[in-house]
Amino acid sequence: MLFRWLSAAVGIPLFLGVTLWSREAFAAGVLLLALLALAEMLAAYGEKDLRPNPLLAGAGVALPAWAWAFAARSGSSLDVGRVVLPAATLLLLLAFTWEVVVAARTGEMRAGRNVAYGLLCGVMLSLFAGMTWLRMDSAPVAAGLFPRIDSGAAWLLLTVFCVWATDSFALFAGKAFGKRKLAPKLSPGKTVEGALGGLAAALAFGALFGWMFVGSWKVGLAVGAVAGVFGQMGDLFESALKRELEIKDFGALLPGHGGVLDRFDSLLFVAPLVALLLPVLPR
Amino acid sequence: MLFRWLSAAVGIPLFLGVTLWSREAFAAGVLLLALLALAEMLAAYGEKDLRPNPLLAGAGVALPAWAWAFAARSGSSLDVGRVVLPAATLLLLLAFTWEVVVAARTGEMRAGRNVAYGLLCGVMLSLFAGMTWLRMDSAPVAAGLFPRIDSGAAWLLLTVFCVWATDSFALFAGKAFGKRKLAPKLSPGKTVEGALGGLAAALAFGALFGWMFVGSWKVGLAVGAVAGVFGQMGDLFESALKRELEIKDFGALLPGHGGVLDRFDSLLFVAPLVALLLPVLPR
Repeated sequence: MLFRWLSAAVGIPLFLGVTLWSREAFAAGVLLLALLALAEMLAAYGEKDLRPNPLLAGAGVALPAWAWAFAARSGSSLDVGRVVLPAATLLLLLAFTWEVVVAARTGEMRAGRNVAYGLLCGVMLSLFAGMTWLRMDSAPVAAGLFPRIDSGAAWLLLTVFCVWATDSFALFAGKAFGKRKLAPKLSPGKTVEGALGGLAAALAFGALFGWMFVGSWKVGLAVGAVAGVFGQMGDLFESALKRELEIKDFGALLPGHGGVLDRFDSLLFVAPLVALLLPVLPR
Repeated sequence: MLFRWLSAAVGIPLFLGVTLWSREAFAAGVLLLALLALAEMLAAYGEKDLRPNPLLAGAGVALPAWAWAFAARSGSSLDVGRVVLPAATLLLLLAFTWEVVVAARTGEMRAGRNVAYGLLCGVMLSLFAGMTWLRMDSAPVAAGLFPRIDSGAAWLLLTVFCVWATDSFALFAGKAFGKRKLAPKLSPGKTVEGALGGLAAALAFGALFGWMFVGSWKVGLAVGAVAGVFGQMGDLFESALKRELEIKDFGALLPGHGGVLDRFDSLLFVAPLVALLLPVLPR
Protein backbone atom coordinates (compact mmCIF):
# COMPACT_ATOMS: atom_id res chain seq x y z
CA MET A 1 0.00 0.00 0.00
CA LEU A 2 2.90 2.33 0.79
CA PHE A 3 4.45 1.48 -2.57
CA ARG A 4 1.12 2.14 -4.22
CA TRP A 5 1.07 5.69 -2.82
CA LEU A 6 4.72 6.28 -3.58
CA SER A 7 4.27 5.20 -7.20
CA ALA A 8 1.30 7.54 -7.51
CA ALA A 9 3.20 10.38 -5.84
CA VAL A 10 5.92 10.11 -8.50
CA GLY A 11 3.84 8.86 -11.43
CA ILE A 12 1.00 11.38 -11.38
CA PRO A 13 3.14 14.55 -11.36
CA LEU A 14 5.39 12.99 -14.01
CA PHE A 15 2.42 12.16 -16.23
CA LEU A 16 0.86 15.61 -15.78
CA GLY A 17 4.18 17.35 -16.26
CA VAL A 18 4.94 15.60 -19.54
CA THR A 19 1.35 16.18 -20.72
CA LEU A 20 1.57 19.93 -20.12
CA TRP A 21 5.16 20.28 -21.30
CA SER A 22 4.80 19.52 -25.02
CA ARG A 23 2.99 17.23 -27.38
CA GLU A 24 6.25 15.90 -28.79
CA ALA A 25 7.42 14.82 -25.33
CA PHE A 26 4.02 13.35 -24.57
CA ALA A 27 3.95 11.38 -27.84
CA ALA A 28 7.44 10.05 -27.15
CA GLY A 29 6.33 9.02 -23.66
CA VAL A 30 3.31 7.14 -25.07
CA LEU A 31 5.57 5.34 -27.54
CA LEU A 32 7.80 4.31 -24.63
CA LEU A 33 4.75 3.02 -22.72
CA ALA A 34 3.66 1.01 -25.76
CA LEU A 35 7.13 -0.55 -26.03
CA LEU A 36 7.09 -1.48 -22.33
CA ALA A 37 3.61 -2.97 -22.78
CA LEU A 38 4.90 -4.99 -25.77
CA ALA A 39 7.58 -6.51 -23.53
CA GLU A 40 4.95 -7.24 -20.85
CA MET A 41 2.62 -8.99 -23.30
CA LEU A 42 5.34 -11.09 -24.91
CA ALA A 43 6.53 -12.17 -21.45
CA ALA A 44 3.03 -12.94 -20.12
CA TYR A 45 1.97 -14.97 -23.18
CA GLY A 46 5.38 -16.64 -23.31
CA GLU A 47 4.85 -17.93 -19.76
CA LYS A 48 1.83 -19.85 -21.03
CA ASP A 49 3.87 -21.30 -23.92
CA LEU A 50 2.05 -19.03 -26.36
CA ARG A 51 4.45 -17.36 -28.77
CA PRO A 52 2.90 -14.31 -30.42
CA ASN A 53 4.50 -13.70 -33.81
CA PRO A 54 7.07 -11.00 -32.98
CA LEU A 55 6.65 -9.12 -36.27
CA LEU A 56 2.90 -8.70 -35.77
CA ALA A 57 3.13 -7.96 -32.04
CA GLY A 58 5.93 -5.47 -32.71
CA ALA A 59 3.94 -3.81 -35.47
CA GLY A 60 1.45 -2.83 -32.77
CA VAL A 61 3.74 0.06 -31.85
CA ALA A 62 3.65 1.33 -35.46
CA LEU A 63 0.59 3.47 -34.76
CA PRO A 64 2.00 5.09 -31.57
CA ALA A 65 5.29 5.56 -33.45
CA TRP A 66 3.49 7.21 -36.36
CA ALA A 67 1.57 9.43 -33.92
CA TRP A 68 4.91 10.43 -32.40
CA ALA A 69 6.37 11.22 -35.83
CA PHE A 70 3.21 13.17 -36.59
CA ALA A 71 3.50 15.19 -33.37
CA ALA A 72 7.20 15.85 -33.93
CA ARG A 73 7.02 16.76 -37.61
CA SER A 74 3.54 18.21 -37.54
CA GLY A 75 2.30 16.91 -40.83
CA SER A 76 3.30 13.39 -41.88
CA SER A 77 0.19 11.90 -43.38
CA LEU A 78 -0.85 8.41 -44.40
CA ASP A 79 -2.43 7.35 -47.67
CA VAL A 80 -4.47 4.13 -47.42
CA GLY A 81 -3.85 2.97 -50.95
CA ARG A 82 -0.21 3.94 -51.21
CA VAL A 83 1.08 3.39 -47.68
CA VAL A 84 -1.21 1.61 -45.22
CA LEU A 85 -2.48 -1.31 -47.30
CA PRO A 86 0.88 -2.08 -48.95
CA ALA A 87 2.69 -1.94 -45.61
CA ALA A 88 0.07 -4.11 -43.91
CA THR A 89 0.10 -6.65 -46.75
CA LEU A 90 3.88 -6.94 -46.77
CA LEU A 91 3.95 -7.29 -43.00
CA LEU A 92 1.34 -10.05 -43.04
CA LEU A 93 3.02 -12.07 -45.78
CA LEU A 94 6.39 -11.66 -44.05
CA ALA A 95 4.89 -12.87 -40.77
CA PHE A 96 3.27 -15.87 -42.50
CA THR A 97 6.57 -16.72 -44.19
CA TRP A 98 8.36 -16.46 -40.84
CA GLU A 99 5.92 -18.95 -39.31
CA VAL A 100 6.30 -21.36 -42.27
CA VAL A 101 10.07 -21.35 -41.77
CA VAL A 102 9.71 -21.86 -38.01
CA ALA A 103 7.21 -24.70 -38.50
CA ALA A 104 9.37 -26.41 -41.14
CA ARG A 105 12.43 -26.25 -38.90
CA THR A 106 10.89 -27.18 -35.55
CA GLY A 107 8.06 -29.42 -36.73
CA GLU A 108 5.76 -27.72 -34.22
CA MET A 109 2.36 -26.99 -35.76
CA ARG A 110 1.53 -23.63 -34.22
CA ALA A 111 1.73 -21.19 -37.12
CA GLY A 112 -1.93 -20.17 -36.88
CA ARG A 113 -1.79 -19.77 -33.13
CA ASN A 114 1.38 -17.65 -33.27
CA VAL A 115 -0.11 -15.37 -35.92
CA ALA A 116 -3.39 -15.13 -33.99
CA TYR A 117 -1.73 -14.09 -30.72
CA GLY A 118 0.69 -11.81 -32.56
CA LEU A 119 -2.31 -9.96 -33.98
CA LEU A 120 -3.96 -9.81 -30.54
CA CYS A 121 -0.86 -8.19 -29.01
CA GLY A 122 -0.52 -5.89 -32.01
CA VAL A 123 -4.03 -4.47 -31.85
CA MET A 124 -3.89 -4.00 -28.07
CA LEU A 125 -0.66 -2.01 -28.37
CA SER A 126 -1.92 0.08 -31.26
CA LEU A 127 -4.61 1.47 -28.92
CA PHE A 128 -1.88 3.44 -27.11
CA ALA A 129 -1.93 5.81 -30.07
CA GLY A 130 -5.33 7.06 -28.86
CA MET A 131 -3.67 9.07 -26.09
CA THR A 132 -1.34 10.76 -28.55
CA TRP A 133 -4.19 11.63 -30.91
CA LEU A 134 -6.01 13.34 -28.08
CA ARG A 135 -2.91 15.29 -27.08
CA MET A 136 -2.28 16.37 -30.67
CA ASP A 137 -5.65 18.03 -31.14
CA SER A 138 -5.11 21.67 -31.95
CA ALA A 139 -8.61 22.84 -32.73
CA PRO A 140 -9.54 25.78 -30.51
CA VAL A 141 -11.54 25.01 -27.38
CA ALA A 142 -13.85 27.45 -25.66
CA ALA A 143 -11.83 29.08 -22.89
CA GLY A 144 -11.89 27.08 -19.70
CA LEU A 145 -10.25 28.18 -16.49
CA PHE A 146 -6.80 27.54 -17.96
CA PRO A 147 -6.71 29.35 -21.28
CA ARG A 148 -2.92 29.11 -21.46
CA ILE A 149 -2.75 25.32 -21.86
CA ASP A 150 -3.00 23.71 -25.32
CA SER A 151 -6.36 22.37 -26.38
CA GLY A 152 -4.75 18.92 -26.75
CA ALA A 153 -3.52 19.02 -23.15
CA ALA A 154 -6.97 20.18 -22.04
CA TRP A 155 -8.68 17.24 -23.78
CA LEU A 156 -6.19 14.79 -22.40
CA LEU A 157 -6.48 16.04 -18.82
CA LEU A 158 -10.27 16.03 -19.03
CA THR A 159 -10.19 12.40 -20.23
CA VAL A 160 -7.62 11.17 -17.72
CA PHE A 161 -9.37 12.86 -14.78
CA CYS A 162 -12.69 11.31 -15.82
CA VAL A 163 -11.05 7.87 -15.90
CA TRP A 164 -9.51 8.43 -12.49
CA ALA A 165 -12.84 9.61 -11.08
CA THR A 166 -14.52 6.48 -12.46
CA ASP A 167 -11.93 4.13 -10.97
CA SER A 168 -11.77 5.82 -7.57
CA PHE A 169 -15.51 6.18 -7.05
CA ALA A 170 -16.24 2.69 -8.38
CA LEU A 171 -13.94 1.37 -5.67
CA PHE A 172 -15.48 3.63 -3.02
CA ALA A 173 -19.10 2.95 -3.99
CA GLY A 174 -18.40 -0.76 -4.21
CA LYS A 175 -16.92 -0.81 -0.71
CA ALA A 176 -19.69 1.35 0.74
CA PHE A 177 -22.81 -0.01 -1.01
CA GLY A 178 -21.69 -3.10 -2.96
CA LYS A 179 -24.21 -5.95 -2.81
CA ARG A 180 -24.87 -7.50 -6.23
CA LYS A 181 -21.84 -8.95 -8.03
CA LEU A 182 -21.24 -7.42 -11.47
CA ALA A 183 -19.30 -10.23 -13.17
CA PRO A 184 -18.25 -12.68 -10.46
CA LYS A 185 -16.51 -15.08 -12.86
CA LEU A 186 -14.43 -12.31 -14.37
CA SER A 187 -13.64 -9.99 -11.51
CA PRO A 188 -15.12 -11.20 -8.22
CA GLY A 189 -14.58 -7.94 -6.32
CA LYS A 190 -16.70 -5.79 -8.64
CA THR A 191 -20.31 -4.97 -7.86
CA VAL A 192 -23.19 -3.43 -9.78
CA GLU A 193 -23.36 -0.66 -7.16
CA GLY A 194 -19.66 0.05 -7.62
CA ALA A 195 -20.01 0.25 -11.40
CA LEU A 196 -22.98 2.61 -11.11
CA GLY A 197 -21.11 4.73 -8.56
CA GLY A 198 -18.18 4.96 -10.96
CA LEU A 199 -20.44 6.00 -13.80
CA ALA A 200 -22.24 8.60 -11.66
CA ALA A 201 -18.90 10.07 -10.55
CA ALA A 202 -17.66 10.10 -14.15
CA LEU A 203 -20.72 12.09 -15.24
CA ALA A 204 -20.57 14.54 -12.32
CA PHE A 205 -16.84 15.12 -12.46
CA GLY A 206 -16.96 15.05 -16.25
CA ALA A 207 -19.35 18.01 -16.21
CA LEU A 208 -17.17 19.83 -13.67
CA PHE A 209 -13.86 19.12 -15.44
CA GLY A 210 -15.48 19.93 -18.80
CA TRP A 211 -16.40 23.35 -17.50
CA MET A 212 -12.91 23.81 -16.05
CA PHE A 213 -10.78 22.59 -18.96
CA VAL A 214 -12.74 23.07 -22.17
CA GLY A 215 -15.34 25.60 -21.10
CA SER A 216 -18.34 23.29 -21.61
CA TRP A 217 -20.04 21.09 -19.04
CA LYS A 218 -21.98 19.33 -21.80
CA VAL A 219 -18.83 18.20 -23.58
CA GLY A 220 -17.45 17.11 -20.21
CA LEU A 221 -20.58 15.08 -19.61
CA ALA A 222 -20.06 13.24 -22.92
CA VAL A 223 -16.42 12.49 -22.09
CA GLY A 224 -17.50 11.38 -18.61
CA ALA A 225 -20.08 9.01 -20.11
CA VAL A 226 -17.42 7.41 -22.32
CA ALA A 227 -15.04 7.07 -19.37
CA GLY A 228 -17.77 5.75 -17.06
CA VAL A 229 -18.87 3.02 -19.47
CA PHE A 230 -15.83 2.10 -21.55
CA GLY A 231 -13.22 2.71 -18.86
CA GLN A 232 -14.88 0.03 -16.76
CA MET A 233 -15.26 -2.16 -19.86
CA GLY A 234 -11.53 -1.87 -20.56
CA ASP A 235 -10.83 -2.85 -16.98
CA LEU A 236 -13.04 -5.95 -17.35
CA PHE A 237 -11.47 -6.91 -20.68
CA GLU A 238 -7.98 -6.81 -19.18
CA SER A 239 -9.25 -8.84 -16.23
CA ALA A 240 -10.55 -11.41 -18.70
CA LEU A 241 -7.18 -11.55 -20.48
CA LYS A 242 -5.33 -11.94 -17.20
CA ARG A 243 -7.68 -14.59 -15.83
CA GLU A 244 -7.30 -16.53 -19.09
CA LEU A 245 -3.51 -16.42 -18.59
CA GLU A 246 -3.90 -17.14 -14.87
CA ILE A 247 -1.84 -14.10 -13.88
CA LYS A 248 -2.65 -11.28 -11.50
CA ASP A 249 -0.77 -8.51 -13.29
CA PHE A 250 0.86 -8.09 -16.68
CA GLY A 251 3.94 -6.53 -15.15
CA ALA A 252 5.60 -5.09 -12.08
CA LEU A 253 7.03 -1.83 -13.36
CA LEU A 254 4.94 0.40 -11.10
CA PRO A 255 5.14 -0.93 -7.52
CA GLY A 256 1.62 -1.45 -6.18
CA HIS A 257 0.00 -0.82 -9.58
CA GLY A 258 1.31 -3.72 -11.67
CA GLY A 259 2.61 -3.06 -15.14
CA VAL A 260 1.91 -0.53 -17.84
CA LEU A 261 -1.01 -2.55 -19.22
CA ASP A 262 -2.51 -2.90 -15.74
CA ARG A 263 -2.32 0.81 -15.05
CA PHE A 264 -3.50 2.04 -18.45
CA ASP A 265 -6.23 -0.54 -19.11
CA SER A 266 -9.16 1.89 -18.84
CA LEU A 267 -7.42 4.69 -20.71
CA LEU A 268 -6.58 2.31 -23.58
CA PHE A 269 -10.31 1.98 -24.27
CA VAL A 270 -11.36 5.54 -23.43
CA ALA A 271 -8.71 7.70 -25.13
CA PRO A 272 -9.27 6.38 -28.68
CA LEU A 273 -13.04 6.75 -28.28
CA VAL A 274 -12.78 10.34 -27.04
CA ALA A 275 -10.37 11.07 -29.90
CA LEU A 276 -13.01 9.73 -32.31
CA LEU A 277 -15.67 11.90 -30.67
CA LEU A 278 -13.64 15.11 -30.92
CA PRO A 279 -14.73 16.09 -34.44
CA VAL A 280 -18.41 15.74 -33.53
CA LEU A 281 -18.35 17.37 -30.07
CA PRO A 282 -19.59 20.97 -29.97
CA ARG A 283 -16.79 23.47 -29.34
CA MET B 1 -9.85 -37.89 -59.74
CA LEU B 2 -12.85 -37.75 -62.07
CA PHE B 3 -14.46 -35.15 -59.78
CA ARG B 4 -11.22 -33.20 -59.78
CA TRP B 5 -11.30 -32.93 -63.58
CA LEU B 6 -15.01 -32.17 -63.65
CA SER B 7 -14.60 -29.34 -61.12
CA ALA B 8 -11.77 -27.92 -63.20
CA ALA B 9 -13.76 -28.29 -66.43
CA VAL B 10 -16.54 -26.16 -64.95
CA GLY B 11 -14.49 -23.94 -62.62
CA ILE B 12 -11.79 -22.74 -65.01
CA PRO B 13 -14.10 -21.51 -67.79
CA LEU B 14 -16.36 -19.93 -65.17
CA PHE B 15 -13.41 -18.12 -63.55
CA LEU B 16 -12.02 -16.95 -66.90
CA GLY B 17 -15.45 -15.94 -68.14
CA VAL B 18 -16.22 -13.79 -65.12
CA THR B 19 -12.70 -12.29 -65.25
CA LEU B 20 -13.09 -11.21 -68.86
CA TRP B 21 -16.73 -10.18 -68.55
CA SER B 22 -16.45 -7.15 -66.25
CA ARG B 23 -14.60 -5.92 -63.24
CA GLU B 24 -17.84 -5.42 -61.31
CA ALA B 25 -18.84 -9.07 -61.81
CA PHE B 26 -15.33 -10.20 -60.93
CA ALA B 27 -15.27 -8.11 -57.74
CA ALA B 28 -18.69 -9.47 -56.74
CA GLY B 29 -17.38 -13.01 -57.35
CA VAL B 30 -14.33 -12.40 -55.16
CA LEU B 31 -16.56 -11.06 -52.38
CA LEU B 32 -18.64 -14.25 -52.66
CA LEU B 33 -15.47 -16.36 -52.43
CA ALA B 34 -14.38 -14.44 -49.32
CA LEU B 35 -17.77 -15.05 -47.68
CA LEU B 36 -17.56 -18.78 -48.47
CA ALA B 37 -14.03 -18.84 -47.05
CA LEU B 38 -15.32 -17.10 -43.89
CA ALA B 39 -17.85 -19.91 -43.41
CA GLU B 40 -15.09 -22.50 -44.00
CA MET B 41 -12.75 -20.93 -41.43
CA LEU B 42 -15.42 -20.54 -38.75
CA ALA B 43 -16.44 -24.18 -39.25
CA ALA B 44 -12.86 -25.53 -39.25
CA TYR B 45 -11.79 -23.59 -36.13
CA GLY B 46 -15.12 -24.38 -34.47
CA GLU B 47 -14.40 -28.10 -34.87
CA LYS B 48 -11.33 -27.61 -32.67
CA ASP B 49 -13.39 -25.76 -30.05
CA LEU B 50 -11.77 -22.48 -31.09
CA ARG B 51 -14.33 -19.72 -31.46
CA PRO B 52 -12.99 -16.84 -33.54
CA ASN B 53 -14.74 -13.61 -32.57
CA PRO B 54 -17.41 -13.32 -35.27
CA LEU B 55 -17.19 -9.51 -35.54
CA LEU B 56 -13.46 -9.60 -36.26
CA ALA B 57 -13.59 -12.64 -38.54
CA GLY B 58 -16.55 -11.10 -40.40
CA ALA B 59 -14.73 -7.79 -40.75
CA GLY B 60 -12.20 -9.66 -42.89
CA VAL B 61 -14.60 -9.37 -45.81
CA ALA B 62 -14.71 -5.57 -45.40
CA LEU B 63 -11.74 -5.11 -47.73
CA PRO B 64 -13.11 -7.36 -50.51
CA ALA B 65 -16.47 -5.63 -50.02
CA TRP B 66 -14.85 -2.20 -50.29
CA ALA B 67 -12.96 -3.34 -53.40
CA TRP B 68 -16.29 -4.44 -54.87
CA ALA B 69 -17.90 -1.11 -54.07
CA PHE B 70 -14.87 0.59 -55.58
CA ALA B 71 -15.14 -1.47 -58.78
CA ALA B 72 -18.87 -0.86 -59.02
CA ARG B 73 -18.86 2.87 -58.25
CA SER B 74 -15.45 3.58 -59.70
CA GLY B 75 -14.25 6.04 -57.14
CA SER B 76 -15.13 5.46 -53.49
CA SER B 77 -12.01 6.32 -51.56
CA LEU B 78 -10.84 5.78 -48.01
CA ASP B 79 -9.33 8.33 -45.68
CA VAL B 80 -7.12 6.83 -42.98
CA GLY B 81 -7.79 9.47 -40.37
CA ARG B 82 -11.48 9.92 -41.01
CA VAL B 83 -12.64 6.43 -42.01
CA VAL B 84 -10.19 3.57 -41.56
CA LEU B 85 -8.83 4.26 -38.08
CA PRO B 86 -12.20 5.24 -36.55
CA ALA B 87 -13.91 2.19 -38.07
CA ALA B 88 -11.12 -0.15 -36.94
CA THR B 89 -11.12 1.33 -33.43
CA LEU B 90 -14.87 1.01 -33.03
CA LEU B 91 -14.81 -2.54 -34.36
CA LEU B 92 -12.07 -3.56 -31.93
CA LEU B 93 -13.74 -2.05 -28.87
CA LEU B 94 -17.06 -3.60 -29.89
CA ALA B 95 -15.39 -7.00 -30.27
CA PHE B 96 -13.67 -6.66 -26.87
CA THR B 97 -16.99 -5.66 -25.27
CA TRP B 98 -18.68 -8.66 -26.91
CA GLU B 99 -16.06 -10.98 -25.39
CA VAL B 100 -16.41 -9.39 -21.94
CA VAL B 101 -20.16 -10.02 -22.04
CA VAL B 102 -19.67 -13.62 -23.22
CA ALA B 103 -17.03 -14.28 -20.52
CA ALA B 104 -19.19 -12.74 -17.77
CA ARG B 105 -22.18 -14.86 -18.80
CA THR B 106 -20.49 -18.19 -19.45
CA GLY B 107 -17.60 -17.97 -17.02
CA GLU B 108 -15.30 -19.36 -19.72
CA MET B 109 -12.01 -17.49 -19.83
CA ARG B 110 -11.27 -17.39 -23.54
CA ALA B 111 -11.69 -13.73 -24.46
CA GLY B 112 -8.09 -13.31 -25.60
CA ARG B 113 -8.12 -16.53 -27.60
CA ASN B 114 -11.39 -15.64 -29.35
CA VAL B 115 -10.11 -12.18 -30.28
CA ALA B 116 -6.79 -13.66 -31.46
CA TYR B 117 -8.39 -16.24 -33.76
CA GLY B 118 -10.99 -13.72 -34.93
CA LEU B 119 -8.14 -11.48 -36.07
CA LEU B 120 -6.39 -14.43 -37.77
CA CYS B 121 -9.52 -15.26 -39.79
CA GLY B 122 -10.08 -11.58 -40.54
CA VAL B 123 -6.64 -10.93 -41.99
CA MET B 124 -6.66 -14.13 -44.06
CA LEU B 125 -9.99 -13.17 -45.62
CA SER B 126 -8.94 -9.60 -46.28
CA LEU B 127 -6.26 -10.97 -48.64
CA PHE B 128 -9.02 -11.90 -51.10
CA ALA B 129 -9.18 -8.20 -51.95
CA GLY B 130 -5.81 -8.58 -53.70
CA MET B 131 -7.48 -10.28 -56.67
CA THR B 132 -9.97 -7.46 -57.05
CA TRP B 133 -7.23 -4.81 -56.88
CA LEU B 134 -5.44 -6.53 -59.73
CA ARG B 135 -8.59 -6.76 -61.83
CA MET B 136 -9.41 -3.08 -61.20
CA ASP B 137 -6.15 -1.76 -62.60
CA SER B 138 -6.90 0.51 -65.49
CA ALA B 139 -3.48 1.92 -66.34
CA PRO B 140 -2.65 1.24 -69.99
CA VAL B 141 -0.49 -1.79 -70.72
CA ALA B 142 1.72 -2.20 -73.73
CA ALA B 143 -0.31 -4.11 -76.30
CA GLY B 144 0.00 -7.86 -75.91
CA LEU B 145 -1.62 -10.34 -78.25
CA PHE B 146 -5.07 -9.46 -76.92
CA PRO B 147 -5.35 -5.68 -77.11
CA ARG B 148 -9.11 -5.82 -76.65
CA ILE B 149 -9.12 -7.11 -73.07
CA ASP B 150 -8.92 -4.69 -70.15
CA SER B 151 -5.52 -4.10 -68.59
CA GLY B 152 -6.96 -5.36 -65.29
CA ALA B 153 -8.06 -8.63 -66.88
CA ALA B 154 -4.64 -8.96 -68.53
CA TRP B 155 -2.84 -8.56 -65.18
CA LEU B 156 -5.14 -11.00 -63.49
CA LEU B 157 -4.81 -13.66 -66.19
CA LEU B 158 -1.02 -13.28 -66.21
CA THR B 159 -0.95 -13.78 -62.43
CA VAL B 160 -3.37 -16.70 -62.33
CA PHE B 161 -1.62 -18.52 -65.18
CA CYS B 162 1.75 -18.09 -63.44
CA VAL B 163 0.28 -19.59 -60.26
CA TRP B 164 -1.19 -22.50 -62.21
CA ALA B 165 2.13 -23.09 -63.97
CA THR B 166 3.93 -23.11 -60.62
CA ASP B 167 1.51 -25.61 -59.06
CA SER B 168 1.38 -27.95 -62.06
CA PHE B 169 5.10 -28.06 -62.72
CA ALA B 170 5.98 -28.34 -59.03
CA LEU B 171 3.83 -31.46 -58.95
CA PHE B 172 5.33 -32.79 -62.18
CA ALA B 173 8.96 -32.02 -61.27
CA GLY B 174 8.42 -33.45 -57.80
CA LYS B 175 7.08 -36.71 -59.23
CA ALA B 176 9.78 -36.94 -61.90
CA PHE B 177 12.90 -35.80 -60.02
CA GLY B 178 11.89 -35.40 -56.36
CA LYS B 179 14.54 -36.66 -53.95
CA ARG B 180 15.17 -34.24 -51.08
CA LYS B 181 12.17 -33.41 -48.90
CA LEU B 182 11.37 -29.67 -48.75
CA ALA B 183 9.53 -29.46 -45.41
CA PRO B 184 8.69 -33.03 -44.35
CA LYS B 185 7.01 -31.98 -41.09
CA LEU B 186 4.74 -29.52 -42.86
CA SER B 187 3.89 -31.13 -46.17
CA PRO B 188 5.54 -34.55 -46.57
CA GLY B 189 4.94 -34.88 -50.30
CA LYS B 190 6.85 -31.75 -51.30
CA THR B 191 10.45 -31.92 -52.49
CA VAL B 192 13.18 -29.36 -53.13
CA GLU B 193 13.31 -30.51 -56.76
CA GLY B 194 9.55 -29.98 -57.10
CA ALA B 195 9.76 -26.47 -55.65
CA LEU B 196 12.63 -25.56 -57.98
CA GLY B 197 10.72 -27.04 -60.94
CA GLY B 198 7.70 -24.93 -60.00
CA LEU B 199 9.83 -21.79 -59.79
CA ALA B 200 11.55 -22.50 -63.12
CA ALA B 201 8.19 -23.04 -64.81
CA ALA B 202 6.83 -19.85 -63.24
CA LEU B 203 9.74 -17.85 -64.65
CA ALA B 204 9.57 -19.44 -68.12
CA PHE B 205 5.79 -19.25 -68.46
CA GLY B 206 5.80 -15.86 -66.76
CA ALA B 207 8.03 -14.49 -69.51
CA LEU B 208 5.82 -16.10 -72.18
CA PHE B 209 2.52 -14.98 -70.66
CA GLY B 210 3.97 -11.53 -70.00
CA TRP B 211 4.76 -11.19 -73.68
CA MET B 212 1.28 -12.48 -74.60
CA PHE B 213 -0.86 -10.49 -72.16
CA VAL B 214 0.96 -7.29 -71.27
CA GLY B 215 3.48 -7.06 -74.10
CA SER B 216 6.56 -7.41 -71.88
CA TRP B 217 8.45 -10.58 -71.08
CA LYS B 218 10.39 -8.76 -68.35
CA VAL B 219 7.25 -7.80 -66.45
CA GLY B 220 6.04 -11.38 -66.91
CA LEU B 221 9.29 -12.64 -65.43
CA ALA B 222 8.76 -10.48 -62.33
CA VAL B 223 5.19 -11.75 -61.88
CA GLY B 224 6.44 -15.29 -62.43
CA ALA B 225 9.08 -14.84 -59.74
CA VAL B 226 6.44 -13.68 -57.23
CA ALA B 227 4.18 -16.62 -58.14
CA GLY B 228 7.04 -19.12 -58.06
CA VAL B 229 8.20 -18.07 -54.60
CA PHE B 230 5.16 -16.76 -52.75
CA GLY B 231 2.61 -19.05 -54.39
CA GLN B 232 4.47 -22.01 -52.94
CA MET B 233 4.86 -20.15 -49.65
CA GLY B 234 1.08 -19.59 -49.49
CA ASP B 235 0.56 -23.27 -50.13
CA LEU B 236 2.90 -24.15 -47.25
CA PHE B 237 1.28 -21.66 -44.88
CA GLU B 238 -2.16 -23.13 -45.52
CA SER B 239 -0.69 -26.61 -45.01
CA ALA B 240 0.66 -25.44 -41.68
CA LEU B 241 -2.76 -24.06 -40.66
CA LYS B 242 -4.49 -27.29 -41.67
CA ARG B 243 -1.95 -29.53 -39.97
CA GLU B 244 -2.34 -27.47 -36.80
CA LEU B 245 -6.12 -28.06 -36.99
CA GLU B 246 -5.58 -31.70 -37.97
CA ILE B 247 -7.76 -31.39 -41.07
CA LYS B 248 -7.01 -32.28 -44.66
CA ASP B 249 -9.07 -29.55 -46.32
CA PHE B 250 -10.82 -26.40 -45.18
CA GLY B 251 -13.94 -27.28 -47.14
CA ALA B 252 -15.55 -29.50 -49.73
CA LEU B 253 -17.21 -27.02 -52.05
CA LEU B 254 -15.16 -27.96 -55.10
CA PRO B 255 -15.18 -31.75 -55.46
CA GLY B 256 -11.62 -33.03 -55.69
CA HIS B 257 -10.11 -29.62 -54.84
CA GLY B 258 -11.33 -29.07 -51.27
CA GLY B 259 -12.79 -25.70 -50.30
CA VAL B 260 -12.30 -22.13 -51.44
CA LEU B 261 -9.32 -21.64 -49.12
CA ASP B 262 -7.70 -24.85 -50.38
CA ARG B 263 -8.06 -23.87 -54.02
CA PHE B 264 -7.05 -20.21 -53.67
CA ASP B 265 -4.21 -20.60 -51.14
CA SER B 266 -1.40 -19.64 -53.53
CA LEU B 267 -3.33 -16.84 -55.19
CA LEU B 268 -4.16 -15.33 -51.77
CA PHE B 269 -0.44 -14.64 -51.29
CA VAL B 270 0.47 -13.80 -54.89
CA ALA B 271 -2.36 -11.49 -56.00
CA PRO B 272 -1.84 -8.82 -53.29
CA LEU B 273 1.92 -8.83 -53.93
CA VAL B 274 1.52 -8.40 -57.68
CA ALA B 275 -1.03 -5.65 -57.02
CA LEU B 276 1.60 -3.92 -54.84
CA LEU B 277 4.19 -4.31 -57.60
CA LEU B 278 1.98 -2.78 -60.30
CA PRO B 279 2.91 0.85 -59.69
CA VAL B 280 6.64 0.07 -59.91
CA LEU B 281 6.59 -2.34 -62.86
CA PRO B 282 7.65 -0.81 -66.19
CA ARG B 283 4.76 -0.46 -68.63
